[in-house]
Amino acid sequence: MMTTKSVRRLAPYTPGEQPKTAGAVKLNTNENPYPPSPACAAALAGFDPASLRKYPDPVFSAIRARVAMMWKTVPERVFVGNGSDEILTLAAKAFVEDDEAIGSLDPSYSLYKTLAAIRDVPFVPTPLDDDFAWNGRITESATAADGRKGAAVSLFLLTNPNAPTGAFAPVAKIAAAAKKFKGVVLVDEAYADFATENCVQLATSAGCRNVVVMRTLSKSFSLAGLRVGYCIGPKPLIEALYKVKDSYNVDAIAQAVALAALGDLKWMRSNVAKVRRTRQRLSETLTRRGWDVVPSESNFLFARPAYRPAKELFQELRERGIFVRYFPGARTGDRLRITVGTDNETDALLAALAELDTP
Amino acid sequence: MMTTKSVRRLAPYTPGEQPKTAGAVKLNTNENPYPPSPACAAALAGFDPASLRKYPDPVFSAIRARVAMMWKTVPERVFVGNGSDEILTLAAKAFVEDDEAIGSLDPSYSLYKTLAAIRDVPFVPTPLDDDFAWNGRITESATAADGRKGAAVSLFLLTNPNAPTGAFAPVAKIAAAAKKFKGVVLVDEAYADFATENCVQLATSAGCRNVVVMRTLSKSFSLAGLRVGYCIGPKPLIEALYKVKDSYNVDAIAQAVALAALGDLKWMRSNVAKVRRTRQRLSETLTRRGWDVVPSESNFLFARPAYRPAKELFQELRERGIFVRYFPGARTGDRLRITVGTDNETDALLAALAELDTP
Repeated sequence: MMTTKSVRRLAPYTPGEQPKTAGAVKLNTNENPYPPSPACAAALAGFDPASLRKYPDPVFSAIRARVAMMWKTVPERVFVGNGSDEILTLAAKAFVEDDEAIGSLDPSYSLYKTLAAIRDVPFVPTPLDDDFAWNGRITESATAADGRKGAAVSLFLLTNPNAPTGAFAPVAKIAAAAKKFKGVVLVDEAYADFATENCVQLATSAGCRNVVVMRTLSKSFSLAGLRVGYCIGPKPLIEALYKVKDSYNVDAIAQAVALAALGDLKWMRSNVAKVRRTRQRLSETLTRRGWDVVPSESNFLFARPAYRPAKELFQELRERGIFVRYFPGARTGDRLRITVGTDNETDALLAALAELDTP
Repeated sequence: MMTTKSVRRLAPYTPGEQPKTAGAVKLNTNENPYPPSPACAAALAGFDPASLRKYPDPVFSAIRARVAMMWKTVPERVFVGNGSDEILTLAAKAFVEDDEAIGSLDPSYSLYKTLAAIRDVPFVPTPLDDDFAWNGRITESATAADGRKGAAVSLFLLTNPNAPTGAFAPVAKIAAAAKKFKGVVLVDEAYADFATENCVQLATSAGCRNVVVMRTLSKSFSLAGLRVGYCIGPKPLIEALYKVKDSYNVDAIAQAVALAALGDLKWMRSNVAKVRRTRQRLSETLTRRGWDVVPSESNFLFARPAYRPAKELFQELRERGIFVRYFPGARTGDRLRITVGTDNETDALLAALAELDTP
């Protein structure tokens, strides 16, 4: 066989469906319903196509300088990836030995398990409580077949706010857990702009040893199509990511457009404020109708329908051109994950649910 | 330590210098001196920035269809990467077990050795003859410390035309070597558009078992800044690459611009013809001046100066704002690798050399 054993075993990660039907109400992949800043359009229009003949800046100096300024840190503590997906892959390479393990909350972003499988190391879940709250402890090792301690978790991926639950863990709780943990805690803050607090200060502090905070431009900055994420952390960890990355991992256009987006925080914050208002309305309406909604600090809700099984509702909504996300499984299978869209999209969803979710 | 042992050992790959001085004559990274097709500018201008809020096509269907049509194969045999760099990294993951090895010609693209180090497996060189020709044999395993057979090479990276030499190995020779080889032969055809033959038919043939041919848009299509490469091969190998890639590895703008470039082969071929004419003139002039020039089928020359040590010339050219590439080492240290630029750039180089390379 010419492919590796672990790859042959691998069940690839399934990204959310990208419906091809025009007019679909797409609330399934946590995209921002509002367009990116006009500064991005201007950056695109001002980009000189002739310059594409040359390689891009391999170390994305302009973005790093901007991010460092935003978060009051130094460029040496900033790394940029081809989406935060790439940063996760590089972290799995740089921070995890072949005989170590990768952990995350359970349930959490389903990609993490695939990531461990691709890296060919055990995946170690840290179970959340029944209400999807985290008790502040990290499961530190796999359990070997004989019941004894197995591979040590050297990379813990902590999504905060968590996905698919939307629940938020206080920064102080994360700081305390990281202090006790031997490996690297990578806080995936994909949705943090929709929350009220974040962990960046943990990652920029002089005493930071093992906390890396990761951001993406896909959600709050409305740039999922662009593939730019960044992370901040202690220098030895950031340097390791530079060592294992491909030579030119962020293309020249993406660098220009990302820089423009990061230069217009006002636009991002205004979109975030709209999403938060709609989130509150959707959450209150569903709750009033008898749904169980996890308190969300993100741009989506994780909610159990009042009357109908989640899987059936998912399919019936899909038939009406309304796409939400359904995750089978013991902890997640009785709920839907619903991205907060525009007010019109939300009205369409609520109207459909009024018909479908009845006793 | 929170980083892995292999990463701490790692000396990162050094990409060619990107001089910041305006007016520099940049002949050091094999970029195309001519701009990309006007169709790329049109694709950029026509790209809707608002669409960036959505994720890109994770399997780049339009590019795959176009590439399949170009090479008379099926989209299932085509994979697209964030530059061919990413394809190399994914191949090292998908085709190489932890106890196997990666091989390439020696000398060849210096990144390959770094790639093996990042993958944490031995790198096994297949030495070229004194004139940089390949004898058609692949060194199949590392030599263990005790002198016995070591790790088997399961991925052989064959750059053709080779870099930094520019030398071309006939397709029949590659086909014969691949037939005898147990692992995967990845033919890196970054420069093949500048040559007279290529290996794509080996990779698209029904009987193909272990040949993957890789292309980049960085050189002949003048799109180094865009980061798009693709490869073609037997379905089981291509499927393995899809399994280990990040979810959305090619951004939406890059997909649109790459598609436009692939739709204007006439533009690419016209630039290639210009580069080939300049290559011939540069090669003939240097030869006439007493340089030893390896016959090149690429967009660069690998040449030994007539009088002065290559390293000194490299530095003196650099002081005059003319950037070429120098690779230290027993096989490469007496030569310069010179990218074929415009006729004006070539004249500037030849004028400087007339002054510097004297007895």
